[in-house]
Amino acid sequence: MSPETLGTPPTIADVARLAGVSKGAVSLALNDKPGVSEETRRRVKQVAEQLNWRPSIHARAMLRSRAFAVGLVLARDPRQLAVDPFFAGFLGGVESVLNGSGLVLVLQVVGEDADKEADSYRRLVRERRIDGAFLLDIRHEDQRPALLPALGLPAVAVGPAGMDCGRVPVVGIRDGDGIAAAVGHLVELGHRKIAFVEGAPAYRHSTSRLDAWRQAMRAHGLSADLHDAGHFTGQGGAAATRRLLRRRPTAIIYASDLMAIAGVSVAREAGLDVPRDLSVTGFDDNPEAAHLHPPLTTVRQDPVAVGAVAAELLLAQIDGRQATPESPAPQLIVRASTATPLPMR
Amino acid sequence: MSPETLGTPPTIADVARLAGVSKGAVSLALNDKPGVSEETRRRVKQVAEQLNWRPSIHARAMLRSRAFAVGLVLARDPRQLAVDPFFAGFLGGVESVLNGSGLVLVLQVVGEDADKEADSYRRLVRERRIDGAFLLDIRHEDQRPALLPALGLPAVAVGPAGMDCGRVPVVGIRDGDGIAAAVGHLVELGHRKIAFVEGAPAYRHSTSRLDAWRQAMRAHGLSADLHDAGHFTGQGGAAATRRLLRRRPTAIIYASDLMAIAGVSVAREAGLDVPRDLSVTGFDDNPEAAHLHPPLTTVRQDPVAVGAVAAELLLAQIDGRQATPESPAPQLIVRASTATPLPMR
Repeated sequence: MSPETLGTPPTIADVARLAGVSKGAVSLALNDKPGVSEETRRRVKQVAEQLNWRPSIHARAMLRSRAFAVGLVLARDPRQLAVDPFFAGFLGGVESVLNGSGLVLVLQVVGEDADKEADSYRRLVRERRIDGAFLLDIRHEDQRPALLPALGLPAVAVGPAGMDCGRVPVVGIRDGDGIAAAVGHLVELGHRKIAFVEGAPAYRHSTSRLDAWRQAMRAHGLSADLHDAGHFTGQGGAAATRRLLRRRPTAIIYASDLMAIAGVSVAREAGLDVPRDLSVTGFDDNPEAAHLHPPLTTVRQDPVAVGAVAAELLLAQIDGRQATPESPAPQLIVRASTATPLPMR
Repeated sequence: MSPETLGTPPTIADVARLAGVSKGAVSLALNDKPGVSEETRRRVKQVAEQLNWRPSIHARAMLRSRAFAVGLVLARDPRQLAVDPFFAGFLGGVESVLNGSGLVLVLQVVGEDADKEADSYRRLVRERRIDGAFLLDIRHEDQRPALLPALGLPAVAVGPAGMDCGRVPVVGIRDGDGIAAAVGHLVELGHRKIAFVEGAPAYRHSTSRLDAWRQAMRAHGLSADLHDAGHFTGQGGAAATRRLLRRRPTAIIYASDLMAIAGVSVAREAGLDVPRDLSVTGFDDNPEAAHLHPPLTTVRQDPVAVGAVAAELLLAQIDGRQATPESPAPQLIVRASTATPLPMR
């Protein structure tokens, strides 16, 4: 009889009954502890093997004070999850490391509410659901970098390289290098009036990209006054583009592909050709980016690699091991949405 | 002293020590069982309240044979997660129902390997990690509809309406209605040569969309021979479009927005204007769809609503309750990528 035909998984009582010993003897035998004969140990192991019996995760958790799970709580509108190409890739990277580790991922999406977010972590800790947590979407006013160490929960934050997160170690994403590469590419093509459309200023990864644009512009001796916020949405990107076009930039750098796509449409409606009249760069390298018309020059993040690095760091933290995994560098992918500006505008 | 400053959550031993009683007495007191005095019961409850103590999820799980979690295993390449706008929305919908239910979601991504997928479910059941599971991406040859009932695990499958999934109840998505609406819209505009680009034929939701196109074409007295597979990727959609354009359709219906976006670019490179020379419809209503140039006519799925319905059905299954939640109908969103065909081609 295969265990699958039992309907429910075998218990330690099944093993004890079939081996003709007590539950305590099963435990001693399987943990290779003294107190049972070699003959009994062999029989118990054979029965456990036949039944494909494993102690439940809850028994192991109580024994070892471990949950064998890590947590990710997102304070986002569930309807907005699909807008962010980073999230799904990050999850994929985390899973690639958790597979085979014996740990699983517990995911909670609580809506845009910092109090619910904190309550969720408190509850996961109180119920001993997780052994550690990932912190994403770090805000400028964020209670989590203080809360999680206070709860005694190992944690790893993901955000712009150099971000201060108190006692929580950070997997630093070098967003700024990607923005600087976009500015450098446009300057090399001959652009001087390069505008920037920021994401959502509440997030550190948003302001860090704005800061990187500012620094790169100044490093090239250019003024950094043409910028606006598009809030990482299509509508926001379109509205910011309409405002910026009045000031006649020859190029616009967007902090996301979605905003860049919306910006290209606004430029076309205004009678501008991309890239002849306006060069455009994005950020993310969405699956769509290479297949747009024209294909979008953009900064490729590698959220899968970031997720894998974050998971390795978190597992090391939980086990009390040292680890200093390197986060991948973003890469400028030059396609056909950028070109030399027209000689006169 | 707030519990957060303790570093780790309080245990039943802390409650017992501070109340000056045994751990057994704490259990009796808090579960309102006889065996302790009213005075003791009051004191224990007060201490537990002060410490904000809760039994760990593992103690509750062992007591009640429940994991207080549901599972989602995806047999996909982790790198491909971001390509699918359905997945993130579905997760969001599931979470909106789980929030406040006391259950959490355990997510595993195992790569495109049906054996690893089955092993993952077996392990989750053996370790008693989950009380139920969602089945997504149902394939034509799929072992899960037989495996999960055999494992004794409540499950809910998500797939095209009318899909047979054995003993596993199905949240039926009416994809076909969306495709039929797209065909009807194009026929009304005057199109007769309407091609179809399918997704990945291994999946039931892919062939169900192809079948819906075929049926709708025949219902309008049109021939259903212009179709090809784009495998739900940008590259695949572009390649299928190149092949189909040789046969001069006046419109192409795509089974995903990503393939439609790639198709529009191929048409433009071939010198065709969309929609003047070629009408195009997508499927998904991605965040980008409304902001493309031209904005994409597409079928809006509501993956958030589907996720919520699936979660309600699964929770009902786990609790042994009846539930017949209704899945939302897809909706054709008419934008500017479709128009009356040129009188002659």
